Amino acid sequence: MEGPKAILLIGDGLGDRPVAELGGKTPLEAAVKPNMDKLAAQGECGIMDPIAPGVRAGSDTSHLALLGYDPYQCYTGRGPFEAAGIGMDVQRGDVAFRCNFTTVDENLVVIDRRAGRITEGTDQLAAAVNGMQIEDVVCLFKESVAHRGALVLRGAGLGAAITDTDPHTAGERVHKSEPLDPGDEASAKTARIVNAFVQRSYEILKDHPVNKTRESQGLAPANIILPRGAGLAPHLTPLDERCNLKSACVAETGLIKGVAKYVGMDIIDVPEATGGLDSDLIAMAKAIMAALDTHNFVLCNVKGADVAGHDSQAKAKMDLIQRMDKMVGYLMEHVDNQTFIVLTADHSTPVAVKDHSGDPVPIVFWGDGVRTDACGAFDERSVTHGGVVRIRGIDVMNIITQLMAVQEKFGA
Amino acid sequence: MEGPKAILLIGDGLGDRPVAELGGKTPLEAAVKPNMDKLAAQGECGIMDPIAPGVRAGSDTSHLALLGYDPYQCYTGRGPFEAAGIGMDVQRGDVAFRCNFTTVDENLVVIDRRAGRITEGTDQLAAAVNGMQIEDVVCLFKESVAHRGALVLRGAGLGAAITDTDPHTAGERVHKSEPLDPGDEASAKTARIVNAFVQRSYEILKDHPVNKTRESQGLAPANIILPRGAGLAPHLTPLDERCNLKSACVAETGLIKGVAKYVGMDIIDVPEATGGLDSDLIAMAKAIMAALDTHNFVLCNVKGADVAGHDSQAKAKMDLIQRMDKMVGYLMEHVDNQTFIVLTADHSTPVAVKDHSGDPVPIVFWGDGVRTDACGAFDERSVTHGGVVRIRGIDVMNIITQLMAVQEKFGA
Repeated sequence: MEGPKAILLIGDGLGDRPVAELGGKTPLEAAVKPNMDKLAAQGECGIMDPIAPGVRAGSDTSHLALLGYDPYQCYTGRGPFEAAGIGMDVQRGDVAFRCNFTTVDENLVVIDRRAGRITEGTDQLAAAVNGMQIEDVVCLFKESVAHRGALVLRGAGLGAAITDTDPHTAGERVHKSEPLDPGDEASAKTARIVNAFVQRSYEILKDHPVNKTRESQGLAPANIILPRGAGLAPHLTPLDERCNLKSACVAETGLIKGVAKYVGMDIIDVPEATGGLDSDLIAMAKAIMAALDTHNFVLCNVKGADVAGHDSQAKAKMDLIQRMDKMVGYLMEHVDNQTFIVLTADHSTPVAVKDHSGDPVPIVFWGDGVRTDACGAFDERSVTHGGVVRIRGIDVMNIITQLMAVQEKFGA
Repeated sequence: MEGPKAILLIGDGLGDRPVAELGGKTPLEAAVKPNMDKLAAQGECGIMDPIAPGVRAGSDTSHLALLGYDPYQCYTGRGPFEAAGIGMDVQRGDVAFRCNFTTVDENLVVIDRRAGRITEGTDQLAAAVNGMQIEDVVCLFKESVAHRGALVLRGAGLGAAITDTDPHTAGERVHKSEPLDPGDEASAKTARIVNAFVQRSYEILKDHPVNKTRESQGLAPANIILPRGAGLAPHLTPLDERCNLKSACVAETGLIKGVAKYVGMDIIDVPEATGGLDSDLIAMAKAIMAALDTHNFVLCNVKGADVAGHDSQAKAKMDLIQRMDKMVGYLMEHVDNQTFIVLTADHSTPVAVKDHSGDPVPIVFWGDGVRTDACGAFDERSVTHGGVVRIRGIDVMNIITQLMAVQEKFGA
């Protein structure tokens, strides 16, 4: 595409805390990453709170904020974005869930929450429950990878403030969903529908041929569907309309693709992107460059650092950063002089925490016209002396679109 | 006046980006400005986002924010502040517009949007249409400089979300104003009134003696009035009441005077202030000092840097800054030791952009008791290491009034 362009490159869970194993450095500080450091030296740096200082962001809420949507306004649960991420049509007012195919006994006590990590036949099982009508609500169901799937409830007056049916542990009976507030009639209706859906899924799936075959092979039957993470689908003005962009997303996980798809971005699939530490990041860089032929904004999420953080693997996180650095080098080498590169993270996943923390993350804006500063390294502590000082995730798209000169002026 | 006082000196569009022509410096960085730098060395510095990081502010929305009024709450369009700026009485609920006297043919096709840049007789033309009654709405009209004027509609149930009648280009027929949302009855009413006003202005003005004379001289008749920039007049608590001040404004443009007047500030006219690069800034400094005899807060807007930015004149912007520096020197020399000087900008107008950008601007608070920091220069990048760190426009009056010790405590 002609004119100014921007790449927003997000290292999932990239931020960290000082790690003893790395001599008191963070994985970013310990890594050899000449390209990221060059980006910092030539760009404008700072720290960024994905949601607000100290708030532990999810990848979904953080990406919403980074794209300029206030998650406190639009996010009630993960469901709608998961469902969108596997290609389901999610409409405003729907209530959507992540689901597991699960194995239960005849008393609905959970035997295996993941149905023996089933990999085949879930499309046939999904087809058997999809389209179910309960009261005036249509239940749309689609399988995802392995034992996963998503449920979309479509009908009038649904709420999302309900408890889960999934007991989250084997040996317990399937829970009955309840509204969090007994006076909340919309959520009470949703809970009623979900309970009926779960019951009926058992009745339909327990004797399904796929499960009969599995049982004959000594495999756990996927004989019930347990929804969780209810979320009310919000109305979000499409990103391209809100920001005057033609945007695309290169991502490895369904959750990020779901958020991107939900806001109307084109989704670019990269077969070599595995979502793990072995992902081919140069293939992703090439996909970004190809996307820029037909788009002027590409968000790319690289998942690996988050995986290493959750697994508490400091060295693996450092290695992933070093591979991501080569990806940054590839981009710097191939972009034209009207392209901005913004490198940041969606949250910190410190190896000591093994989960998302509320620590801020580094950010750098690189490209023609930025107010370069004295920062020479891209890491959590070096960037605190940069010109950006400290911003929030919700600010990022405004900064990008003003650099690209596509933002409307507010006032005269 | 006795007691603590403050001067808020705003360089319109003062902020910039690194400019190749200036060796990679911004005009502020390249300028020789010993007084501004002394202010920085003796004061407390930081960067400021007029609205929010990355948001491209107008001068009107920025000045509202700098005076402590949230433009997202109170600003729907430029009209009310323009009208107030030329001395019209604007009341809460009015819908106000900027207008052009225009030349159209008998089919209402625009011949000259500015009616030959008419300079005389617009007061008589204005008087001929002023006070028109359409439905239950009174149409108040007043001429401004040259071909400009303002229209205030006063009546029940008016909205401001309408399209313009001005086609913004010659050769096109005058547009019919429409509500942006067909279901918005208040705006539909305004559109109906505006369309009738435009039609009637043509009927009244086409045979007006002023125009007959112009036509006999071969000049374009000012035979129609085209309103644009509709804004619903908000209720704003007067600044003096909200902040315990006695305030005045020294400004060069109608838009800034309009904002100031709208919030009840006294307007000080300085005949030597032209709004251009040739403006007499020492005359403005003297006007500020004179105003401090009877006021304890003076906002002063110097327009020149914005003009140079829009015109992409890096050297002219630098020169203007150097003249503004002498103005700062004059103020530092003449204020008493109870007076604070706050120097900042309302937005950046980078010479490379030729329009307002969303880049933050430098700010310095100078006066007795401020927490001085290590910043020794007043420019976009030096101040990022200052004690103020990064604030927003809406914070500025709170900081000023607490330094002045006129702010009420919030809580016990």
